[in-house]
Amino acid sequence: MTSAEDLADRVREGELRIHELEEHADYDTAAAARRLHVERETGTDLEAIGDYGFPAKQAEPNVENMIGAAQVPLGVVGPVAVSGGAVDGERYLPLATTEGALLASVNRGLSVIRSAGGADARVTKNGMTRAPVFRVDGVAEAAETVEWVEDNVEALREAAESTTSHGELLGVEPYVVGDSVYLRFAYDTKDAMGMNMATIATGEACAVVEDETPADLVALSGNLCSDKKPAAVNAVEGRGRSVTADVVIPGEILEQRLHTTAAAIVEANTRKNLIGSAKAGSLGFNAHAANVVGAAFLATGQDEAQVVEGANAITTMDVREPASEEDPADLYASISLASLEVGTVGGGTKLPTQSEALEILGVRGGGDPAGSNADALAEIIAVGALAGELSLLAALASRHLASAHEDLGR
Amino acid sequence: MTSAEDLADRVREGELRIHELEEHADYDTAAAARRLHVERETGTDLEAIGDYGFPAKQAEPNVENMIGAAQVPLGVVGPVAVSGGAVDGERYLPLATTEGALLASVNRGLSVIRSAGGADARVTKNGMTRAPVFRVDGVAEAAETVEWVEDNVEALREAAESTTSHGELLGVEPYVVGDSVYLRFAYDTKDAMGMNMATIATGEACAVVEDETPADLVALSGNLCSDKKPAAVNAVEGRGRSVTADVVIPGEILEQRLHTTAAAIVEANTRKNLIGSAKAGSLGFNAHAANVVGAAFLATGQDEAQVVEGANAITTMDVREPASEEDPADLYASISLASLEVGTVGGGTKLPTQSEALEILGVRGGGDPAGSNADALAEIIAVGALAGELSLLAALASRHLASAHEDLGR
Amino acid sequence: MTSAEDLADRVREGELRIHELEEHADYDTAAAARRLHVERETGTDLEAIGDYGFPAKQAEPNVENMIGAAQVPLGVVGPVAVSGGAVDGERYLPLATTEGALLASVNRGLSVIRSAGGADARVTKNGMTRAPVFRVDGVAEAAETVEWVEDNVEALREAAESTTSHGELLGVEPYVVGDSVYLRFAYDTKDAMGMNMATIATGEACAVVEDETPADLVALSGNLCSDKKPAAVNAVEGRGRSVTADVVIPGEILEQRLHTTAAAIVEANTRKNLIGSAKAGSLGFNAHAANVVGAAFLATGQDEAQVVEGANAITTMDVREPASEEDPADLYASISLASLEVGTVGGGTKLPTQSEALEILGVRGGGDPAGSNADALAEIIAVGALAGELSLLAALASRHLASAHEDLGR
Amino acid sequence: MTSAEDLADRVREGELRIHELEEHADYDTAAAARRLHVERETGTDLEAIGDYGFPAKQAEPNVENMIGAAQVPLGVVGPVAVSGGAVDGERYLPLATTEGALLASVNRGLSVIRSAGGADARVTKNGMTRAPVFRVDGVAEAAETVEWVEDNVEALREAAESTTSHGELLGVEPYVVGDSVYLRFAYDTKDAMGMNMATIATGEACAVVEDETPADLVALSGNLCSDKKPAAVNAVEGRGRSVTADVVIPGEILEQRLHTTAAAIVEANTRKNLIGSAKAGSLGFNAHAANVVGAAFLATGQDEAQVVEGANAITTMDVREPASEEDPADLYASISLASLEVGTVGGGTKLPTQSEALEILGVRGGGDPAGSNADALAEIIAVGALAGELSLLAALASRHLASAHEDLGR
Repeated sequence: MTSAEDLADRVREGELRIHELEEHADYDTAAAARRLHVERETGTDLEAIGDYGFPAKQAEPNVENMIGAAQVPLGVVGPVAVSGGAVDGERYLPLATTEGALLASVNRGLSVIRSAGGADARVTKNGMTRAPVFRVDGVAEAAETVEWVEDNVEALREAAESTTSHGELLGVEPYVVGDSVYLRFAYDTKDAMGMNMATIATGEACAVVEDETPADLVALSGNLCSDKKPAAVNAVEGRGRSVTADVVIPGEILEQRLHTTAAAIVEANTRKNLIGSAKAGSLGFNAHAANVVGAAFLATGQDEAQVVEGANAITTMDVREPASEEDPADLYASISLASLEVGTVGGGTKLPTQSEALEILGVRGGGDPAGSNADALAEIIAVGALAGELSLLAALASRHLASAHEDLGR
Repeated sequence: MTSAEDLADRVREGELRIHELEEHADYDTAAAARRLHVERETGTDLEAIGDYGFPAKQAEPNVENMIGAAQVPLGVVGPVAVSGGAVDGERYLPLATTEGALLASVNRGLSVIRSAGGADARVTKNGMTRAPVFRVDGVAEAAETVEWVEDNVEALREAAESTTSHGELLGVEPYVVGDSVYLRFAYDTKDAMGMNMATIATGEACAVVEDETPADLVALSGNLCSDKKPAAVNAVEGRGRSVTADVVIPGEILEQRLHTTAAAIVEANTRKNLIGSAKAGSLGFNAHAANVVGAAFLATGQDEAQVVEGANAITTMDVREPASEEDPADLYASISLASLEVGTVGGGTKLPTQSEALEILGVRGGGDPAGSNADALAEIIAVGALAGELSLLAALASRHLASAHEDLGR
Repeated sequence: MTSAEDLADRVREGELRIHELEEHADYDTAAAARRLHVERETGTDLEAIGDYGFPAKQAEPNVENMIGAAQVPLGVVGPVAVSGGAVDGERYLPLATTEGALLASVNRGLSVIRSAGGADARVTKNGMTRAPVFRVDGVAEAAETVEWVEDNVEALREAAESTTSHGELLGVEPYVVGDSVYLRFAYDTKDAMGMNMATIATGEACAVVEDETPADLVALSGNLCSDKKPAAVNAVEGRGRSVTADVVIPGEILEQRLHTTAAAIVEANTRKNLIGSAKAGSLGFNAHAANVVGAAFLATGQDEAQVVEGANAITTMDVREPASEEDPADLYASISLASLEVGTVGGGTKLPTQSEALEILGVRGGGDPAGSNADALAEIIAVGALAGELSLLAALASRHLASAHEDLGR
Repeated sequence: MTSAEDLADRVREGELRIHELEEHADYDTAAAARRLHVERETGTDLEAIGDYGFPAKQAEPNVENMIGAAQVPLGVVGPVAVSGGAVDGERYLPLATTEGALLASVNRGLSVIRSAGGADARVTKNGMTRAPVFRVDGVAEAAETVEWVEDNVEALREAAESTTSHGELLGVEPYVVGDSVYLRFAYDTKDAMGMNMATIATGEACAVVEDETPADLVALSGNLCSDKKPAAVNAVEGRGRSVTADVVIPGEILEQRLHTTAAAIVEANTRKNLIGSAKAGSLGFNAHAANVVGAAFLATGQDEAQVVEGANAITTMDVREPASEEDPADLYASISLASLEVGTVGGGTKLPTQSEALEILGVRGGGDPAGSNADALAEIIAVGALAGELSLLAALASRHLASAHEDLGR
C-alpha cells in the first residue's frame, strides 16, 4: 500500500499530478499526500487544515484536490420565533462567520422579535431557473423559434421531467437579442436547491429545441438564469425562493430594548436602504442581509457563491398606529429576499457539521410534503435577516455602529 | 469551577441567557455548555460541530454564541502562474467549497494558463469606502454642505487619519438627494480589508462635518459605500481592489487541452457573458467568478458576504492573430473584478486554517510595502477566477456542463 | 364676443386664471389671449410660437394652456428597406430633430442596408403594462392576495376588458415586497400605444381585487409598469413592442461604402456597446438608438417621454463567413429594442404634421388586422435605429465622429 | 433657376439623390422638391409638414433632408416660483407635448408650490462627459496607461482646452476592463449642453494619450460617457447638471388644494417611487419626471433623446412637523435629477419657437456669468418636475389617475 509520503514524492518528481492521487490510494491518504506536497513546496505546516472531522471520501461530491477543511467559527442565535407557511414555532439558527458582532446583532434583533410575538414569513414564489442560449440565423428564425417554444411547452416539459423524479417544469420564458435566443426554464426542485437538476433537465429539453427548430445550442447557461451574478432578472422575477418576513414591534419594546423609536428607524431605513441604495444604482435595498444569508449558507451547506443572489433584498420599515393613543408608535418591519437559493438535500448538506446544523433547524433532508423543508429554511433565514436589519438600523440610528465594532470587532 | 452541564442547566432554567456564558466560564466550556443546551433543546447530537480545532477564545473577535465550527472541504488548485504588480511566480491557491467540480474546473484552467506562460495581473485601483448619510433642511443647506466638504478635505483627512496608524484618506465624493447628503469616503487601508478602519475613521470625520455644517448624521453607512449589496456604484467606481488578470492562450493549446477554438470560446463569451448578462440587467458579465472568489474568501478568512461585490466582474475573450499564419488563432482572455475586498490582516485571517491558507499563498500578515500582500492576494484570486472562466466557457462551448456535473457533482 | 386682448387684461387683473380662458372664448382666441398675457408679462414677442398650423381645438386632447406650437425641423431618410412581420417593402421614414448630422448618418446606414437587400424585422413580444400597488397588513395577507390573483385571472380579465373594445388582457404578474403587493397587468392594445387603455382597464380590475382580497389600492401605478423610467423590468421583460431588426452586410459593401471592415465594426461594438455599457452599469447596450427613436417619435406623434424606454436596446455585431473565400468577411448587425411603445391611433397621432408623417409610412390609423400598423411602425423604427447604429459604429471606428460633428453639427 | 418640380423629377429619374438637393437650389426649394418627391412616392399630401415657419437655411445645423417641420402643441405653466442658485423669482415655463393632462397636472403643482412660497433649487454638480475607449495589449499596458493619465492631467487639459474658448476640463477618470481602457473626461461647458464641445476637446486629448502611451483609440465614445442610454454611471455620478428642487408644503394647503395629507402622499411615494422602483430594478425613482423634462426639452430646443438621462431622478417625500400642533403635518417634497443635460446656446436653441421659449424663461443665449443661464434653466425645469411629482402623487393617492385621463386625455 502506498503511503502519503510515497505519493508526495511521486508528485514532486512529476510522475503524478495532484489531482490523480485518489487513483493510487484511499481518499484520506491522498489528501494527506497532497497536503504534504503543498507543505514541502511552500514551506508551511498545514496541521490545522489537516485536522478535519470527516472521511475524505465523504467530501468527494463537494471538492477535488482536497487537503483538509476550512474551519469557520459557528454559533447560534435565537430562538427564531416564526409563523411561516412551512414552519411554525421557535428554532435556533446556526451561523458560521468570521464577522465579529454579527451574531450578537442578529441575536438582539431576534430577541426583540420574540418579545413582539414572533415574525410572519412566507415563500411567495419558487422556481430554480436555467437559461440556455441558442444561435439562430437572424430574427426571422428567432421569431420562428420563440413561436415554436410557446406552442410546445408540453413537449419541453416531457423531455425535461424525464430526467428527474422530483423536479417539475413551471414554465419557459423566451428572450430574443439579435441572433441569440434565450429560454429561461423555471423548475420546482422541491427540497433541493436544484441547480444541477435544472441544468440536466434543461439539457434534455434543449435537445428537443434543437431537433424541432433552427436553433443551435451555444451554452446551457446563457446568463439569463442568472446564477451567482448580481442581475436584475433575479431581483425582479426571483430565483429559488422569493421569501418575505415581517413583524410589528410595539413602540414600548422599541424604546426599552432598542433605545429608539419607530420614526427614527424609519428615517434611517428610508435615507439609507431606500434612497441611498437608489442613488447607488443598487439591486440590494437592505442594510446587511448578505451577512445573515452568508453565515446561514455556510453553516447549513448551501452554495456560498449564491450569497450574491441572496443579497437581492428589500427592507421596508413603516410607522404603525399603536394600540392606544398614549403609547409610542409601533414599527412595521419587513425584508423581502427575491432570490434565496436553498436546499436541504444535495450539495453540501450531507457533510457532518452542515448536516448537524440542518438538524438544529429541524429541516434536514427531504420535507413532507416535498419542498417544505427548503421552504422552512428560507423562512427561518428570512426572519434571521429581518432581525439583522432591525438590529443594525437601530444601532445606526443610535450611532452605535463604529463603537460596536470597536468593542466586538476585528 | 462551573461545568458545561451546570451552565446548560442554568440556561434551561432561565437563569442565564445563551450569550452570557463566557462571563461564567472559560470560552471552550461556554461553547460546550451552549452546544449542550442546543442539543437538549433540539434533540440533536452536535459532535461534528463540537470537534473544532482552535481555542474558542481565539475566535472571540469573529463570532459570538459559539458552539463550534463549520468544516468545509478545502483543496488546492494550481500552481497559479502569475506575473502581477505585487506577486511574481507560482502559488498554490487554497479553495474551500462544497461545489463539486469547481476545483477540477479551475485547476484545468490554471494548467492551461501555465502552459501559456502564466497570466498577467494588476490592481488598477484601490480604495475601501464608507458613505455616511446626513440630514439637512433642504437643498439650500445641502449645497452649502457639499461646498464646505469640497473646500475642507484636509480637515476631514486630519480627523479621519487620527484614528488609524495605517489608513490614508484618498478622497471624499458628495452626493445630494433632496434633504439627504451622502459623503463617500475612500481609504487606502493597506493590507487590511479595511471596513472597520474606514468606519471608525469616517465616524471621526463625520463629527467634523456635523460641527462645521448644518448637516446631522443619520447613519454612518448610507448605502452608497456600498457594502454587501449588488450596487452599480461598486461595479463602476470600484471598492477594495479593482483587479484585472489576463492571458493569451496559443491556439494549439486551446485545441489540444481544451478541445475547442478561440472563435468558439469568444462566441460563448459574447452570447452568454456579454449579451446574456446585458439582457439580464446584470452587473456581473462573467460565467462564475463568484465561485472562485467565494471559495478563496472562505479558505483565507475573508468576509464571506463580500462575495456579493466580488461578483461584479467582466470577462472578455477575443481572438488574436497567431504567431504564424498556419497556426490556429490565439485567444486573449481577461477578467476584471471591480470590487474585490480582501485583506491579509484582521478579520478571519488569524484563525488557524485561514492563516495556513494565507501561508500557502505566501501572503500572511502585513506586506512590505504595506498593502502589497493584499494586492498579491487580489491578483492571485483574479488569475484563479480567470482560470475558472476559461475552463467553464470551454466546457459550455463543448456542451460538457451537465455531464461534468453528473460525473463530479452533487 | 370676447377678444384676446380683453381676456389677457382680465388675466392680468386676476379675474381669470390662465387655464380658464377656453371657458370664455373659442380655443384659438383663448390661445391668443394666453400668448398675449405671457408676452406682456415677459416682454417677449411670441410670433413664431403663435404661427401654428392647426385649429387649437384640435389640440385639446394633447395640451392645456396652449399658446401655440413648437416647430421642429423634419426630414426624411430612406427608403427603409424592410422585410418584417407586419411590413414588407420600402418606406420613407420621417424624423424630427435638432441634432445635426443625425439624418445624414441614418440615411447613410439605410443606403447600405438597401444595398444589402434590406433588413429583416420582427416584433417578438407585445404587451402594454400597468402595475398598481396595494397595501396589505403584512406578508400573510400578501400571500393570500397573490394566491387569489393567480386563481382568478379570468375574473380580472372580465373586469379589465369590460372597459375596452379592443384591448386584451395577456396576463397578471404579482410581486410582493413587505406589506406592498404589485400586480403587473399586461395588455395587447393593438394599434394604440395603450397606456390610457391599460390604466382604465387596470383600474376596473383593481376594484375586483379590492372587493375579493384584503388588499387596498394605494396607487394605480406602482412603478413596476414601468412608465418613463429607466427600469430593468422593461429591459428584461419588455413593454410595448419588443422588436429586433437585423441585416447581413457583404464585406465588399462595408469596404466600398463604409470604408471599414466587419472586424473593425465588431471591435468597436464590443468595446463600446457591450463592454463599455457593461462597465457603465447600463440598460442600453447601443450607440445611439434613442436618437432615432426620439426623432421618429416626435415626427409621428408618439409620447416623447417614452424615448426613455426606447433606449433599452442591445446592438450586436458579428463577423460572418463571406460567400467566397476571397471576399472580405460579411457583417451580421442587429438591434433589439426591448420596450418600444408606439401607436398609430390616439395620443398625438391625429395632429396634422404627425398624421402626415404616419401616412408617409403607410401606417396611419388602425391596421388590418388590428395591431399590424403599430407592429409595422415598430419594425420600421427598428430598422432606422439599426441604420443609425451601423453608421455611427462605422464612423467611430473610422474616427469620424468629431469631424462629422464639426462639419454638420452645432 | 431650378424649380422644386424639376428637382423632384430628377430625383425620381435617379439623377439626384434626396440628400443632394441643396447643391442645386436654395434650401426652401430643396425642401419643397424633396417633399414633392415623397408626396409622389407615397401618395400623400404633406401640406401641414410643409407649413413651417422658419427659413429652411436656418435649420441647416439641425437637420438634413428637410421637408418641413413637426408642429407640437405648446402651452405654458406657472409661473414657476423658484429661489435657486442662478434664478430667483417667477417664470412661466413653456412645455410642448401631446400628452393630454400633463400641463394641467404640472400647473396644479406649481400653483401649490406658489402658495407655499416657492421652491428652492440648486445645481449641486455640473460636468458634461465624454469617455473614449482605447485598445491596449493587456492589463500590464492598461496599468501603465492609467498611471500616465493620472500623472499627466495637465497635459490633457492643455490639449482639450485648446479646442474651445469656453469649456474647462474638470477631470479625467480612468476605468480598465481587460485590454480596454476608458477615460471619462468631464467638462464645464458653461451655457452649452456641451456634447459637441466635449467630443472635440476629448478628440484632441486622445491624440496626446495615443502619442504618450501604448493605448490606441478605438472609439471617441466608449459608452462610459454615457450619452442617451439609461446608465448607472450617470445616475450615480451625474452628467450635465445634477439639480435638486424642494419645497415644504403646509398641511393646510395639502388639504385644501390637493385634498390629501402629507402622510398619504408620503405613503404613495414610498410604495410607488421608492419601493416599486427598487423592485423594478430602476434607475428612476420618480413618478413621471421624464414628462416634464421631455416637454421642456422639446419647447426649448434641447436634445430630445437626452430625455433618457433626464429620467434618472429620485423623488422624496417626507412628513414635517407643522408650525403649530393643531395644524395638519407639513410635507417636504424634493426631486433630484442626476443628469439633466441642458444648454441655452447651440443645438436647437436658435430655432424660432425654441428661441422664443427660452426668452419666456429669460434664459436665452449665454448667461452672465457664463453657465448661469443653463443653470437657471436646469433649476426651473427641476421645479417644474417637482410640481409634476406633487400633482401626480396627490392624484394617485386620491385615485384620480384614470379619471383624469378620461376627462383630459386621449
